[in-house]
Amino acid sequence: MSDLHSDQLATLLVTCPDRRGLVAALAQVLFGHGANILDSDQHSDPIAKQFFQRIRFDTSELLTDRGTLERAIGEVATRFDMRSRISWQGRAKRVAIFVSKYEHCLIDLLLRHRSKELDCEISLVISNHRELKPLVEQFGVDFHHVPMTDQNRAEQERRELELLSRHEVDLIVLARYMQILSRDFTALYPQRIINIHHSFLPAFVGGKPYHQAHERGVKIVGVTAHYVTEHLDEGPIIEQDVVRCSHRDSVADLIRKGRDLEKVVLARAVRWHVEDRVLVYGKKTVVFD
Amino acid sequence: MSDLHSDQLATLLVTCPDRRGLVAALAQVLFGHGANILDSDQHSDPIAKQFFQRIRFDTSELLTDRGTLERAIGEVATRFDMRSRISWQGRAKRVAIFVSKYEHCLIDLLLRHRSKELDCEISLVISNHRELKPLVEQFGVDFHHVPMTDQNRAEQERRELELLSRHEVDLIVLARYMQILSRDFTALYPQRIINIHHSFLPAFVGGKPYHQAHERGVKIVGVTAHYVTEHLDEGPIIEQDVVRCSHRDSVADLIRKGRDLEKVVLARAVRWHVEDRVLVYGKKTVVFD
Amino acid sequence: MSDLHSDQLATLLVTCPDRRGLVAALAQVLFGHGANILDSDQHSDPIAKQFFQRIRFDTSELLTDRGTLERAIGEVATRFDMRSRISWQGRAKRVAIFVSKYEHCLIDLLLRHRSKELDCEISLVISNHRELKPLVEQFGVDFHHVPMTDQNRAEQERRELELLSRHEVDLIVLARYMQILSRDFTALYPQRIINIHHSFLPAFVGGKPYHQAHERGVKIVGVTAHYVTEHLDEGPIIEQDVVRCSHRDSVADLIRKGRDLEKVVLARAVRWHVEDRVLVYGKKTVVFD
Amino acid sequence: MSDLHSDQLATLLVTCPDRRGLVAALAQVLFGHGANILDSDQHSDPIAKQFFQRIRFDTSELLTDRGTLERAIGEVATRFDMRSRISWQGRAKRVAIFVSKYEHCLIDLLLRHRSKELDCEISLVISNHRELKPLVEQFGVDFHHVPMTDQNRAEQERRELELLSRHEVDLIVLARYMQILSRDFTALYPQRIINIHHSFLPAFVGGKPYHQAHERGVKIVGVTAHYVTEHLDEGPIIEQDVVRCSHRDSVADLIRKGRDLEKVVLARAVRWHVEDRVLVYGKKTVVFD
Repeated sequence: MSDLHSDQLATLLVTCPDRRGLVAALAQVLFGHGANILDSDQHSDPIAKQFFQRIRFDTSELLTDRGTLERAIGEVATRFDMRSRISWQGRAKRVAIFVSKYEHCLIDLLLRHRSKELDCEISLVISNHRELKPLVEQFGVDFHHVPMTDQNRAEQERRELELLSRHEVDLIVLARYMQILSRDFTALYPQRIINIHHSFLPAFVGGKPYHQAHERGVKIVGVTAHYVTEHLDEGPIIEQDVVRCSHRDSVADLIRKGRDLEKVVLARAVRWHVEDRVLVYGKKTVVFD
Repeated sequence: MSDLHSDQLATLLVTCPDRRGLVAALAQVLFGHGANILDSDQHSDPIAKQFFQRIRFDTSELLTDRGTLERAIGEVATRFDMRSRISWQGRAKRVAIFVSKYEHCLIDLLLRHRSKELDCEISLVISNHRELKPLVEQFGVDFHHVPMTDQNRAEQERRELELLSRHEVDLIVLARYMQILSRDFTALYPQRIINIHHSFLPAFVGGKPYHQAHERGVKIVGVTAHYVTEHLDEGPIIEQDVVRCSHRDSVADLIRKGRDLEKVVLARAVRWHVEDRVLVYGKKTVVFD
Repeated sequence: MSDLHSDQLATLLVTCPDRRGLVAALAQVLFGHGANILDSDQHSDPIAKQFFQRIRFDTSELLTDRGTLERAIGEVATRFDMRSRISWQGRAKRVAIFVSKYEHCLIDLLLRHRSKELDCEISLVISNHRELKPLVEQFGVDFHHVPMTDQNRAEQERRELELLSRHEVDLIVLARYMQILSRDFTALYPQRIINIHHSFLPAFVGGKPYHQAHERGVKIVGVTAHYVTEHLDEGPIIEQDVVRCSHRDSVADLIRKGRDLEKVVLARAVRWHVEDRVLVYGKKTVVFD
Repeated sequence: MSDLHSDQLATLLVTCPDRRGLVAALAQVLFGHGANILDSDQHSDPIAKQFFQRIRFDTSELLTDRGTLERAIGEVATRFDMRSRISWQGRAKRVAIFVSKYEHCLIDLLLRHRSKELDCEISLVISNHRELKPLVEQFGVDFHHVPMTDQNRAEQERRELELLSRHEVDLIVLARYMQILSRDFTALYPQRIINIHHSFLPAFVGGKPYHQAHERGVKIVGVTAHYVTEHLDEGPIIEQDVVRCSHRDSVADLIRKGRDLEKVVLARAVRWHVEDRVLVYGKKTVVFD
C-alpha cells in the first residue's frame, strides 16, 4: 500500500491454455530482466483447461528498460498463446460513475476514494437526474447531467460515450443506475462496466428484487456485483454477499439492509478491478483477492 | 430444556386476521384458568393483515382441567376467527425420515436426536435403497426398504402411507431423498413434510444445483429447508444458510461444503417444527426462534 | 415506518422480577383503556429470574387520555415491582455525537439520519479537533470544538455537560471518540452513552486492537457496540459483528475491513436504542430487534 | 481429488527469509527436472520479512528420479536458507485422535474420513474414558483406554507416546480432550498437535468458555482450532468461526450451537494440515486454502 517507490511496481495478468512450463517461463523472464516477484497467485481450471496468473513485481532494479521487459513478456505470451496485460502502478485507472437518484453507493465510493481505499481516479459522474450534482461537486468531481427518454436514448448514449472518451475512462461503475445500457454501448467496454444488482443472482433477476424476495419469503437476501454484458443480469459475477432476514422484515427493512450490502459489495468489486485482481473467462471470474 | 415438570408445559400456536383485543383476550383466558405464560412471541403482517402468536405456558397450577382450558381457548378462537393448535409437551411428535443413499443428513439427525437436541421421536426410516439399513438399526430405529420404479410408484407410495399411518407419524423429513412425491401424497401431509434442497432457493431449482452454481460462477452457495407442496422447490421456506466459495472450488468442493450446510439447516428446520415454532401462511413462514 | 398517525404510537419497556400474571395484567390495562397492542416481545431470564417486555401500541382509539393510561400502567408497575418507561413516538430522542478525527462513523450516522433510517434528532456534534466542522455543518448540525488536554479535562467536561444539558440530549454516541470519559461524566448518563470498540470484546481490550489482532494471528476480527460504564470496555454489549481475515491482511487491511463493520454495528446499536429496543440488566442486554 | 495417478503428485512447502530470485529458482529447479507445477500459492510477510510458498506438482513425466529431484531442491533450500518439506501424495499422514467423553467431534472426523473428505489415515483413538470404544471400533479403528489421574499422569503419557510411536503417528488431534498435555509431551510434536478450543480466542481462555460467554452477554460466540504449544490456549491459530447468539440463548443453547462450529472448524484445520496447507511462523499461521 505505502510502497516507497510504488511507480516501480507493476502487475501482470495472464490467461492461457494450461501447459507445462508456463510458470517457470514467466518466472524466468521476469527474473532474467531483474524484476523481483513480490506476489504471485495462480489458478488452473481443470475443466476449461485454462491457466490464470497474477504476478506483482518490483522493477526498481531492472537490468533493462520497461519496453524491453514488455517485449520479452510478449514473446512468452506468443509462445504460450497467452492473453496478458501489464499495469504500471503509477498510472491509476480512470473511473466514471453512473448514477440515478439513489445516493448511497455513489457517496460510499467517493468517501472510500477520499480515504485512499480505492487506488483509482474518479474522473466524472454521469446521471440522468440533477439531484446529486452539488454533492458530487463537493468532492471535486465533474458531474454531467444526461437525461434519458425512450426517444433520445441513442443520442444521449453518444453524448455519454463522448464524455467517456474525452476523460479516457477505463472503468464504468453503475452505482444503482436505473437505466439499461444498449448492446452497442456495452460492447465498447467489455469487462469494463461493473453493475451492482440488488439480489443474490441468479435469484430475482429483473426489477424490484427486494419486493420479489419479500414475496417469496426468503430467509436471506443478497446482492451481486457483476460485469455488464449484453444479457441483463447474466454477466460474470465478481462478488456477492448476503444478510439474514425474517418474517419481521418489511420490504422497507430489506431495502435498508440491502443498502449496506450494496455499498460494500460494489466497493469490493471496484477495488479488485482497479487493483487488477479480476480475470474473466466465459461467464465466470477468477478473483485473486 | 431441563424443566422439572415438562409435561405440564404446553405451546399454543395461533393464526388469524389481525384485530383489536386479540392479545388481551388470549392472555386473559390463559391467566383466568391459572395457566402461566412463560414465553410469548407474536407477529403482525400489515400487508396480509394477519396475526400470528406462539405462547408457551405452564399448567402446573391450573385452576381447571386441560379439557376446560382447551374449550375456553376454542371459544376465543371462534370469536376471533383463529386457527389454533395446542401441543402438550409430554407428547413428542413422531417423525419419519425418508432417505436415498446419501447418509450425512440422516446420521446427523440420528446423532442430534440421541444427544437430545431434537425433542421428538424418530419412528422409522424409509429408503428406496438398502444400504443404510445396518446404520439405522444401530440407532434402534425401524428401517423399511421401499424401492421405487416408474412402474410401481403408486403402489409403493401406498405402502409408505400405510407405514406412516401405522406409526402415527406427525412429520416426514426428506433427508436428501432423491424421489419426487406424488401430488396425492403431499396433499395428505400439508405443512408436515420438510425437504432440504441443496441450493439457495429460488436460485437453481431442479436437479444438480451445485453443478448449476459452479457453472454460473456464483461466489456463495446455499441450501434451503422448506415445506413440500405440490409445486417442486416452491414450498414455504423455513430456513436457509450459505457458505462462501471461489473460483478455486470444484463441483466436488461445493458438494463437500454444501453437506455441512445441509445438515445444520435441515436440523434447524426440524427442531423448529417439532418445537412448534413455525407458522405457514401463503408461500411464507413465520419462525419464532 | 410509514404509519399514518405515528404520533399516536407508543412503546412501553418493562423490567421486573418474573411473576405469574404479569403478561395478562399489562395486556389487560392497555386493552381496558382502548390501546391496541401492535407488537409485543418478551423474555424471561430463568437464572436472574427477571422478566422483560417491549410493547408497541396504538392510542388512536384511546378511551381515556394519555395521563390516565400512564397512571394506570404506573399502578401495575407498582404492583409487580416493575421499572417501566413509555416513549411516545412523536417525541424523537435527541442525540449528541462525540468524535475525534476519524470521520467514517460520523458521516455514516449523518447519512443514515438523512435517509430516515434513524428515528432521532441529531442535536450536536462535539469534537476535540476542528477538522470535521465543515462536514458537520453541511448537514445542518451544530458543531462544538472542545479540545482536551490532561490539564483541562475536568473543565472541558463541564463545558460538554453544559452543551448536553442545553440541548436536552437523551443519548451520547461515541463515534470513534478517542478520549476516555471521567467516571463522574459516565455516571450522569447511565445506559445512555454508546461506544463502538474496534474489537470483538472481550478479546483485545484497550488500545490499538487491530494491531493486537494482527499480532495474535486471528482469522476473524470484530467490533462491539456497548454502553459505557465506569469500567472501560466492560459495559453491556448491544451488538457485535465480525469479518474474516487471513495471513494476507496487513494491519492496514484490518483497519479498512473494520471500518465497514464499525459503521454498521454502531448504526444498528443506535437505531435499536432510539427505537427503545434495548433493555439492560447487570452487564447484559436484551435486544428486541 | 480424483487424480488418475495421484501417487505422482507431491507438495512442496517452503519458509525462508524473503529474497530476490526465490520464486524463479524454485520454478526453475522443478521445471528443469520435468516436474509440472499444478498449483502454487505464496505469501510474503513484509514485517517479519519472511517468504512462504506451497507448490503442488506432478512428477509423472519426471526426467530424473525422486531422489535426484529432492537433492536438487535441497540445494536451492540451502542457497536461500529455506526450511522445506516435500510430501508425496501416496503416503497419507497418520493421525491419532484424543478424546474424553464428548463424541461429536470424534464421530464427525470418523464420518468425514469415511466419506473421503480427509486425506489421511486414522490410526488410533486414545481416551481417558471407555465409553466411546464400541463406536470407534465400528469404524475399524483401534481404541486405547488410557485413564489419567494426577498421580499417574507421567506414566500414562509414556504409554501414550509409546502408542503414538508404534503407530508412527504424524498428527495428534485433540477432539475435545479434556486433559492438559505436559510440556514434555507437546515438545515432542511441535506443530503437530491440533486442539479445538470452544471460544473465539483470545476471548475466554481456560475452562467453561460458553459459561463465560453467557455471563459476559456477548452477541456472537466462536471456536478456535490451534496448534498446541506449552502455553495453554496460546498456540498458533489455524481456523476460527462464529455463530450469532442473543439474550434468548441459555448456556445449553450456546453449547448446542457451539458443537456445530467445533465440528466444522476442527475438521477444516485437520484437512488443511493433512493437505500440507498450513505453515507456522512465530505465533501465527499461513493457511493456503
